[in-house]
Amino acid sequence: MLPTATPWSRTRLQQALRLYLVTDQASLLGRTLADVVLAAVHGGVTCVQLREKHLGSRDFHAQAMALMDLLRPLNVPLIINDRIDIALACGAQGVHLGQSDLPVQRARALLPPEVFIGWSVETLEQVAHSVALPLDYLGVSPVYATPTKTDTATPWGLDGLKEVRAATALPLVAIGGIHAGNAAEVLAAGADSLAVVSAVCSAADPRASAQELKRLIDAR
Amino acid sequence: MLPTATPWSRTRLQQALRLYLVTDQASLLGRTLADVVLAAVHGGVTCVQLREKHLGSRDFHAQAMALMDLLRPLNVPLIINDRIDIALACGAQGVHLGQSDLPVQRARALLPPEVFIGWSVETLEQVAHSVALPLDYLGVSPVYATPTKTDTATPWGLDGLKEVRAATALPLVAIGGIHAGNAAEVLAAGADSLAVVSAVCSAADPRASAQELKRLIDAR
Repeated sequence: MLPTATPWSRTRLQQALRLYLVTDQASLLGRTLADVVLAAVHGGVTCVQLREKHLGSRDFHAQAMALMDLLRPLNVPLIINDRIDIALACGAQGVHLGQSDLPVQRARALLPPEVFIGWSVETLEQVAHSVALPLDYLGVSPVYATPTKTDTATPWGLDGLKEVRAATALPLVAIGGIHAGNAAEVLAAGADSLAVVSAVCSAADPRASAQELKRLIDAR
Repeated sequence: MLPTATPWSRTRLQQALRLYLVTDQASLLGRTLADVVLAAVHGGVTCVQLREKHLGSRDFHAQAMALMDLLRPLNVPLIINDRIDIALACGAQGVHLGQSDLPVQRARALLPPEVFIGWSVETLEQVAHSVALPLDYLGVSPVYATPTKTDTATPWGLDGLKEVRAATALPLVAIGGIHAGNAAEVLAAGADSLAVVSAVCSAADPRASAQELKRLIDAR
């Protein structure tokens, strides 16, 4: 059998996305991003999204390069939020796009084929539309209301997540208000992966928090 | 003689940059960007930089595409501020980088060879450093204090501009507080090009304002 065009087979991508950390500088409780990310990865985080909506390009790029240096030896993919130029410059493995970011086809045309693309969906119309787009996963956002991101749409809830699950075969990354207390029901509703921000970034012990979440994911 | 790698010979670039409009949504006095840009180009503006520090990527991209559609038939190059991904996506002819944007070499590596790069310099150390960088022009910023951009460094003044002129052979685009009343002295101090924001964007008649500036440039 010939190798596929991308090194990210559906199965490998699903594995890589299992416990998905989204960074938030404001939630680190005074710790460095590198320290929190490293602890989280040691606890079981399988991929990291760098989200920086307020940094200048030079600082965003510097942070991305630093995270690449940290994550590459650990075989943990780095996903860049929104900025295709930063993803290209640092050699990130993935890009995550929201509804106010570049159109998916434009981003796809700018990226090498081995860089995967995820897309946040906030409505069933967007889920239906996603079938026609060159996407590798969907971010179901937000599942629950969350204080981390205030510009989000109406929460999907578990019933909404089930509807998304019924509508697409793409890997689903659930995000928004997810923690160890509700992880099992989110997975049961059809999520392939859990994305967390404050549940790990703001945890007293990010490694232990990631371990607990990973245990719940692996137990499915 | 073989053609050069880039279609932008020094001479052609200097001509293209002569009267350089930098957009500012906040300065349009209620008019649309397209209307102001078109009037400015008809008045003599030779290139347009789209600067959008506050728009999301999707809106920035949409604006860039709209300006490309407007300017391409007029043979007026579009220069994108900061965002290499937007420049790539819309097929802009140039990119302008500030000191807090991507490092110049990184940007150069991401762009096709025919896309030119300008860099804002705020100190003589940066001018000295620019010799080692793959740059096509320098933005001398700001020449005078300006209300349009509040994060700028100490103004160069005319003496500072003369020092930059003595230190580099790159085309110099002077920016910051330039209008018809001081254009002649800025050109006499060594600027190859004048960049304007409010002098055209906020003019009662952007076309007439551009005409007056172009007349001063052509009179040199």
